[in-house]
Amino acid sequence: MNVFETTESEVRSYCRSWPVVFDRAVGAHLYDESGREYLDFFAGAGALNYGHNNPVLKQAVIDYMMADGVTHSLDMNTVAKRDFLETFRDVALAPRELDYKVMFPGPAGANAVEAALKLARKITGRQSVINFTNAFHGMTLGALSVTGNSMKRGGAGVPLVHATPMPYDNYLDGRVEDFLWFERLLGDSGSGLNEPAAVIVETVQGEGGINAARPEWLRGLAELCERHGMLLIVDDVQMGCGRTGPFFSFEQAGITPDIVCLSKSIGGMGLPLALTLLRPELDVWEPGEHNGTFRGINPAFVASTAALREYWTDDTLEKSTLAKGEQVGRTLTDLAEEHDLKAKGRGLARGLQFADGETADAVCRAAFERGLLLETAGPDGEVAKLMPPLTITDDEITHGLAVFAESVRAVVGKGTA
Amino acid sequence: MNVFETTESEVRSYCRSWPVVFDRAVGAHLYDESGREYLDFFAGAGALNYGHNNPVLKQAVIDYMMADGVTHSLDMNTVAKRDFLETFRDVALAPRELDYKVMFPGPAGANAVEAALKLARKITGRQSVINFTNAFHGMTLGALSVTGNSMKRGGAGVPLVHATPMPYDNYLDGRVEDFLWFERLLGDSGSGLNEPAAVIVETVQGEGGINAARPEWLRGLAELCERHGMLLIVDDVQMGCGRTGPFFSFEQAGITPDIVCLSKSIGGMGLPLALTLLRPELDVWEPGEHNGTFRGINPAFVASTAALREYWTDDTLEKSTLAKGEQVGRTLTDLAEEHDLKAKGRGLARGLQFADGETADAVCRAAFERGLLLETAGPDGEVAKLMPPLTITDDEITHGLAVFAESVRAVVGKGTA
Amino acid sequence: MNVFETTESEVRSYCRSWPVVFDRAVGAHLYDESGREYLDFFAGAGALNYGHNNPVLKQAVIDYMMADGVTHSLDMNTVAKRDFLETFRDVALAPRELDYKVMFPGPAGANAVEAALKLARKITGRQSVINFTNAFHGMTLGALSVTGNSMKRGGAGVPLVHATPMPYDNYLDGRVEDFLWFERLLGDSGSGLNEPAAVIVETVQGEGGINAARPEWLRGLAELCERHGMLLIVDDVQMGCGRTGPFFSFEQAGITPDIVCLSKSIGGMGLPLALTLLRPELDVWEPGEHNGTFRGINPAFVASTAALREYWTDDTLEKSTLAKGEQVGRTLTDLAEEHDLKAKGRGLARGLQFADGETADAVCRAAFERGLLLETAGPDGEVAKLMPPLTITDDEITHGLAVFAESVRAVVGKGTA
Amino acid sequence: MNVFETTESEVRSYCRSWPVVFDRAVGAHLYDESGREYLDFFAGAGALNYGHNNPVLKQAVIDYMMADGVTHSLDMNTVAKRDFLETFRDVALAPRELDYKVMFPGPAGANAVEAALKLARKITGRQSVINFTNAFHGMTLGALSVTGNSMKRGGAGVPLVHATPMPYDNYLDGRVEDFLWFERLLGDSGSGLNEPAAVIVETVQGEGGINAARPEWLRGLAELCERHGMLLIVDDVQMGCGRTGPFFSFEQAGITPDIVCLSKSIGGMGLPLALTLLRPELDVWEPGEHNGTFRGINPAFVASTAALREYWTDDTLEKSTLAKGEQVGRTLTDLAEEHDLKAKGRGLARGLQFADGETADAVCRAAFERGLLLETAGPDGEVAKLMPPLTITDDEITHGLAVFAESVRAVVGKGTA
Repeated sequence: MNVFETTESEVRSYCRSWPVVFDRAVGAHLYDESGREYLDFFAGAGALNYGHNNPVLKQAVIDYMMADGVTHSLDMNTVAKRDFLETFRDVALAPRELDYKVMFPGPAGANAVEAALKLARKITGRQSVINFTNAFHGMTLGALSVTGNSMKRGGAGVPLVHATPMPYDNYLDGRVEDFLWFERLLGDSGSGLNEPAAVIVETVQGEGGINAARPEWLRGLAELCERHGMLLIVDDVQMGCGRTGPFFSFEQAGITPDIVCLSKSIGGMGLPLALTLLRPELDVWEPGEHNGTFRGINPAFVASTAALREYWTDDTLEKSTLAKGEQVGRTLTDLAEEHDLKAKGRGLARGLQFADGETADAVCRAAFERGLLLETAGPDGEVAKLMPPLTITDDEITHGLAVFAESVRAVVGKGTA
Repeated sequence: MNVFETTESEVRSYCRSWPVVFDRAVGAHLYDESGREYLDFFAGAGALNYGHNNPVLKQAVIDYMMADGVTHSLDMNTVAKRDFLETFRDVALAPRELDYKVMFPGPAGANAVEAALKLARKITGRQSVINFTNAFHGMTLGALSVTGNSMKRGGAGVPLVHATPMPYDNYLDGRVEDFLWFERLLGDSGSGLNEPAAVIVETVQGEGGINAARPEWLRGLAELCERHGMLLIVDDVQMGCGRTGPFFSFEQAGITPDIVCLSKSIGGMGLPLALTLLRPELDVWEPGEHNGTFRGINPAFVASTAALREYWTDDTLEKSTLAKGEQVGRTLTDLAEEHDLKAKGRGLARGLQFADGETADAVCRAAFERGLLLETAGPDGEVAKLMPPLTITDDEITHGLAVFAESVRAVVGKGTA
Repeated sequence: MNVFETTESEVRSYCRSWPVVFDRAVGAHLYDESGREYLDFFAGAGALNYGHNNPVLKQAVIDYMMADGVTHSLDMNTVAKRDFLETFRDVALAPRELDYKVMFPGPAGANAVEAALKLARKITGRQSVINFTNAFHGMTLGALSVTGNSMKRGGAGVPLVHATPMPYDNYLDGRVEDFLWFERLLGDSGSGLNEPAAVIVETVQGEGGINAARPEWLRGLAELCERHGMLLIVDDVQMGCGRTGPFFSFEQAGITPDIVCLSKSIGGMGLPLALTLLRPELDVWEPGEHNGTFRGINPAFVASTAALREYWTDDTLEKSTLAKGEQVGRTLTDLAEEHDLKAKGRGLARGLQFADGETADAVCRAAFERGLLLETAGPDGEVAKLMPPLTITDDEITHGLAVFAESVRAVVGKGTA
Repeated sequence: MNVFETTESEVRSYCRSWPVVFDRAVGAHLYDESGREYLDFFAGAGALNYGHNNPVLKQAVIDYMMADGVTHSLDMNTVAKRDFLETFRDVALAPRELDYKVMFPGPAGANAVEAALKLARKITGRQSVINFTNAFHGMTLGALSVTGNSMKRGGAGVPLVHATPMPYDNYLDGRVEDFLWFERLLGDSGSGLNEPAAVIVETVQGEGGINAARPEWLRGLAELCERHGMLLIVDDVQMGCGRTGPFFSFEQAGITPDIVCLSKSIGGMGLPLALTLLRPELDVWEPGEHNGTFRGINPAFVASTAALREYWTDDTLEKSTLAKGEQVGRTLTDLAEEHDLKAKGRGLARGLQFADGETADAVCRAAFERGLLLETAGPDGEVAKLMPPLTITDDEITHGLAVFAESVRAVVGKGTA
């Protein structure tokens, strides 16, 4: 038995799917210690939108460290934090006419969610929050209470309360008018629904199975929130930073959430960083009312600033993502038609839904054997999830899709294609 | 107004005490952008035990990055994770006859606490946890529920339940026998105390005001836990990694907790990393039952491995910490006698308690004006907290103590010394 | 100011609608202290199904008291309790092929609900319960958590958790297939619905606005519960004891709930008594695990036994109730057509829904002025509720309906009829 | 098997201790169906302070029923309710300079507690309540959450939160200063104690083992509540109505609670009635915000009014209770000295504490065999509880004490006396 088996907790999971030891990584590729190459359609679960060891970002971080820049600073002011805030304001917010205040809630997406929920409750004086079926928002107790997965919820060991699930877009296969149930509950003083402080939503549910909400559904939700005095929180932890094309995933719908949670790829090269963005009038925090040690990881600021400057001062990346997304989408649609499956997703967040989790798992294993990394998602793990780095080359994505198609056919299409 | 004021949330706090913009940092010193030097008795709230940009650690990280080592890997297996696990086992665990399983619960201390609480509840089937007066365990909902600070608790916006506070060591000034109340409640089926899954404790309360529990109190607590089937969780996030002398702060008491939470300085140079250590028989997690994106930050593994090898393969650092701690302690005792104050702490976690928070604040401001950084702690911020990097030199610590003494006298000792 | 205004709490309500002081009552009539007569279409909110001071019941109680029968006995065995249990078994249960165990949970309907919820949670080890929109189950904290009315919920002062509302029959105006949403949530491990211990339902929602579930909906619910291992609790507190015709309101649907809550009219002449009926295999209580002082009010046993013997050994009352119910229903349907209103209900639980609560209130005031007592129900009090004693005479009901029709026309039908 | 065994739930308990079927009862005596006589030192768990079928009360109720007085009226105004309110105000409140508003919260003590807790939370906007070790306040979810007994708490099936137990008077055997812990928690913003809305206390804990708080402890508690803005709720359900001598049990301490819960003997002859008494400025209820069907049981009003007039217009009963209480106390003290036991209690709420529950049970069984009814109390049922009707005659009490002493000696004193 190796040290992973003897010493690491049984809770480990990804290493079970990919039983090799990775060593180096560049762009869209990982290399295990034997030197074998893997094409990465996983991208750190969305934390590596700019690829592994992106040279621009990496060089910026190394330069910063070589110059003995402050590494760890909590919420002290640093030059690196100032550069980040100015760049984020000028590149990510101002061009989109967003005037959010920026909060550093801790290193990870769950921290951004915890802070968003706290603030929504503080502002409204209400405890209850609406989440959606198959939502995923994190593993800390507040974030877990608005997460759908029953196995993960069971891990809490206490009843998870203060959240009520509503049907996500198309959850009932189009058989029910959008928000019919939700709005009826809100409008009926006898419905028994605790008055919600906020609604928390992902525009595309990643862990939930690459479920992409339609723009009109998101607009309907935003209007419902406004009509009923509920704050709208968009959890853009996985779908932000360009995953669906534009920097924020909600841009396509033309909505402006009250609060936005950002993490994963904001840290630039997979370094921990999270942001909670607030409409200025919601910034009613007391100094220090929410804090934490790892809120000022300056290498992450530096990498993030470099990424914003490199990729978000024009629309090259956005257009490329949309084009590649279309390419992936076409392949998946073809495969879906070929094998009676379901193609899902938007931008470079794509999925192919199989009959069950076992099949999807088998496809991912087949892909791994062929040097392609991808994971499953969905309540039963029934969706193969294709999330390459946005910076993947055309050749790489074409190759990856070919390997994926071959893997699908090897598992479900024996003799059919 | 600068970008911090216009764009960062009002929740920011440290930057309010130290209104400069820091740029570089080496060892025990920070430098602001004007080049002014500050001696650091704060050490990233305990995350920088080995100093800023420690050359050994820094070089290891830069080398790793230059070689395109995998940066971000969730819980995939990597060479860097293997090196870390083997080193941690061989250097931190085995010599102390500890056989903990290692869980990577997320990037920060609060994640380690959330995972510990989940596991304790899962194992025992009970929901309730005992915490202590003036405990600090983090800001996420689970961790916050066992934290004492009422302002931070109020930020939750939901009632924080499932935790009952017990008196920390010496909380009632020695007027009550240790554990009299706690044990009476446990032994009485009519007491109304929900049966606890676990007890969570800091051996020295950092945020709570540098309250150091006596070894015999900790032993009494461990025995109580054993007698009543409660798991003992030591939150060593701030006091571990040598802050009190030995690697684990509980070594001095000779106890073996069931679960240990580690973070802050384990990441080596202020990089986010957290561990939940479990007795092997408690490792009943399902794969993936608790997960998260930022559980495999390989630069943190690399820095941590380097730190373990550099500082923990012999007892040089431990002895040095104890010696410097003694030196700080003597200075504080003298100041306490001189001004009728109270010296507190153990190892290099030390504090001086003033009459109120305003006085302590004034002392810290006076120190800042003299180029010394330190923060306050305690329920009313009445304790000035002295936590220099463990690697501080003798000259630096002597100088810092002189500046501190001068600051104290400037505020409380006018005309007396 | 009288003593009610000076000394009784502002929480009082019925006395505000009917500002007289009642003195005597016989059958379907109350008399105020000036001797004015009122026809009672309210029947103690369902507690007086056999009318006021029913001579058979009254004589039995007086005889019992004159003989110094034990009045108050908790759950000691008494002759009166034995008579009641034997009669209830032989008259109410056995002929319907029901073998429920009988629990005395306390004096009121809320106690029956509290006990039912406790037991369902104990048996299943789950905390969550499904209730329905516009449900009413009582004012104690457990019962209130499954009640819909937001004003009453707000009175709790703590978040009411562990319950999730589902749409009651026809809540979405027939636009959504029965149980589509509920079943989807149950079948999806990622839905975020905490696994329910039980479903609690009223077959006709009294306080909720005289909403009568269709038999096929109730059967669908019972099948859903069976398929998903949820206990089915029917709260028959208001609709039991013949209010809808048969003794139990669920008989018409042909279902057998796992747990039944009974109170109100079971006490025979408005005396406090409540029952929780359990399928025998669910009777896993420890002795005394749920108890209470007022579980053995023997005058209530005596009245209840007399009522069972007088009214439930043949189907005379049931048939009469159904016939009178038809008569009320026809009148309401005519009024509804005449004034574009909505007739609701089943058996002798009937209602007429107006445009809003103000109109319904005005109708009830107009009726009161004409000597007819009835209250409003529904989330906005928009339904006038007609619930006369089941023992009302034909002449009385005909007269009451005429007064009601006149009151309706006086308020909403000016010039139209 | 009889009908109790075949048909009544396993939750039944008193009938297990006294396996006979009671038939009639007069004064301090019960008679089983074979005609055997039992002297009652149990008094309906405090609901029968004026004895069984007290002729004055019984006649009043029979007269009322014979005249067709309204039996059941919710919170409608009735002549009987007016008589009760006026009498209660004039006899119970005014002479004690109390100006409480009277709320009818439902039929039982638990309803009075539920309403008190709701109101305290509504007024303060806080959720948390302080209860005491070994408290008993009822079985509904709100009342149960402030009750100590772990078996009964376990029956809830959900975690009971929002309450924190504090040590009752003498809980730590006088080794700790009164309120040292409680006051320290309240004064420390870092203690982790959720700010309490209220403190709920029994002046003598009945179910908890006849623990009588000292007047100075109650005064200290009242002062503490005032200093810290917590409402003081006295649960006088078991100890009120003269059980300890004066009408309210808190009179001896000279305190005026903010809210008082009354039930059990207020209904006069064991009929269900409960009151929540509020300081007038706390009467912020909305009409109907708390309600319930069984809040207007007029026979209970009638019996209660008769009892107030018969027993509380002078101090005869109070003096008699105190004198009889002294007599019982002397006997218990003698027995305690004789057998190294502990005598407990105040007024006619008395107890004798044995080594364990088995011994106390054996004593109660021995008494039952000798025709004396008494139950056990305390966390382990280790206290034999002597609570005769206050109207017991001198001969009866002398006889009962002799039987009790004989029973004690038969069990614990073999050969010693």
